[in-house]
Amino acid sequence: MDIVMDADALNAFLASEFPQVADSYCVDRVDAEELSARLTVGEAHLRPGGTISGPSMFALADLAIYCAILSRIGPVALAVTTNAAIDFMRKPAAGRDLVARCRLLKLGRGLAVADALIFSDGTEEAVARCSMTYSIPPKRRDSGQLDAGI
Amino acid sequence: MDIVMDADALNAFLASEFPQVADSYCVDRVDAEELSARLTVGEAHLRPGGTISGPSMFALADLAIYCAILSRIGPVALAVTTNAAIDFMRKPAAGRDLVARCRLLKLGRGLAVADALIFSDGTEEAVARCSMTYSIPPKRRDSGQLDAGI
Amino acid sequence: MDIVMDADALNAFLASEFPQVADSYCVDRVDAEELSARLTVGEAHLRPGGTISGPSMFALADLAIYCAILSRIGPVALAVTTNAAIDFMRKPAAGRDLVARCRLLKLGRGLAVADALIFSDGTEEAVARCSMTYSIPPKRRDSGQLDAGI
Amino acid sequence: MDIVMDADALNAFLASEFPQVADSYCVDRVDAEELSARLTVGEAHLRPGGTISGPSMFALADLAIYCAILSRIGPVALAVTTNAAIDFMRKPAAGRDLVARCRLLKLGRGLAVADALIFSDGTEEAVARCSMTYSIPPKRRDSGQLDAGI
Repeated sequence: MDIVMDADALNAFLASEFPQVADSYCVDRVDAEELSARLTVGEAHLRPGGTISGPSMFALADLAIYCAILSRIGPVALAVTTNAAIDFMRKPAAGRDLVARCRLLKLGRGLAVADALIFSDGTEEAVARCSMTYSIPPKRRDSGQLDAGI
Repeated sequence: MDIVMDADALNAFLASEFPQVADSYCVDRVDAEELSARLTVGEAHLRPGGTISGPSMFALADLAIYCAILSRIGPVALAVTTNAAIDFMRKPAAGRDLVARCRLLKLGRGLAVADALIFSDGTEEAVARCSMTYSIPPKRRDSGQLDAGI
Repeated sequence: MDIVMDADALNAFLASEFPQVADSYCVDRVDAEELSARLTVGEAHLRPGGTISGPSMFALADLAIYCAILSRIGPVALAVTTNAAIDFMRKPAAGRDLVARCRLLKLGRGLAVADALIFSDGTEEAVARCSMTYSIPPKRRDSGQLDAGI
Repeated sequence: MDIVMDADALNAFLASEFPQVADSYCVDRVDAEELSARLTVGEAHLRPGGTISGPSMFALADLAIYCAILSRIGPVALAVTTNAAIDFMRKPAAGRDLVARCRLLKLGRGLAVADALIFSDGTEEAVARCSMTYSIPPKRRDSGQLDAGI
């Protein structure tokens, strides 16, 4: 399926529709195989011991998967997360951003499924894996409201 | 298993160890059957259309389950979320807090499993369900650091 | 929502449509709160050490949840499992049937969500928990084919 | 980590320890990146409409992930599935075997995490995805019993 929104278009969309998220999260790259998104880790994402909070990792995976879907169907769709399964496997490395690498496994008329691996930037062993299902309602021409799970 | 930390003790622990969380999240009640925790919904938790963000709901379930474990084993344990599965089922009602009702299904030496239903306060149909596994490392006498998944 | 198929009707339906399953699995009871289903454990479900195989437990949860949905919408619907999350928490007791107790959490037009606890019959601590999503396609008047995930 | 059991060794192990499974399931290939396992689809795995049952797909993923772990730690370990999350995405193609391609994401002292994509043999779009956690108890010298989740 063709890429209809590239990384710049996705980041512009996030800045416009999710300004509270766009400060910390961005899309680095998207192609036919994979979308890569980044969490610029700040104080708000840390927990005692210097680890990164589970909800921050969840949010990164959710954003990456949401953007992977939009990259194929464009910004007009209402899409909501209906299911997520996440494994936290390792403690993130201190002082590094988190990078999610997401692949779209199914893009049906009603449901999309994708998974993502999350890495401490520059390292090779994933700190978390996540799979999610999004529900994609039928397109409505006049739809102005966006209702993402992120 | 006996309750060794009640709601007040759990809230004092959260305020001390997770000050960035304790403003919005608290434990309402804990007994042998169930722990109830609350997210006081603010602007930071909302998304376009007035819905509550997925990560905010994830964080509420995570906190409820973490506190349900601590209510039985006390504040000395290192405990980290290793797995979570969550279903987002309905849009939360506008203008209401979220309440998670959590039950502990297993508390083993190494792993604990619990699930939670999340409701818009005062309503009867759950907006989300979540199950999580926590890894509980062996107790260490000198352990001062807490490393929750929240 | 009203119960439109009771336990007898569900078992007759299973015997007719899923004869390869109906020997081992049956519905014990269904009411507005809960559906209870049973796996009569035989050699085919056992593994070395006398434990019950994971797929057998998965199948029990799947059947219980499928029947809980049918109990509300009747036998005409095509319904397929789209997602399952399962936690295996304890080794089942030797020489006992397994019983799944299932509650329907959402029954929407397109998706249904339910969860189940699985017990060794007569014991109080769940051996497994499971949540599943079913996709329920629009009703078709001429639909004669059933396509369950079980 | 080195491969200590190749496909032949894994299949011999399955035939010896899980004879009820070894008729239908086998390991095709294992290397440092991936393990590939196969379900030779027979009548017992089919459901009305010619689809393959959910438990059969679950069993294939479970076997692939179990063997991926054993390929690194050898046949002496007791290992049990503690968690599984599975998405059923497409109807399998009629008349084809199922092939699971599994990658090991974490192999810790106590927990292993892996995921798998399941394909109708010879096709390119996955029919299902699955992730699982296995608990790996400490090695015991005299351990003769195997207690897999499969």
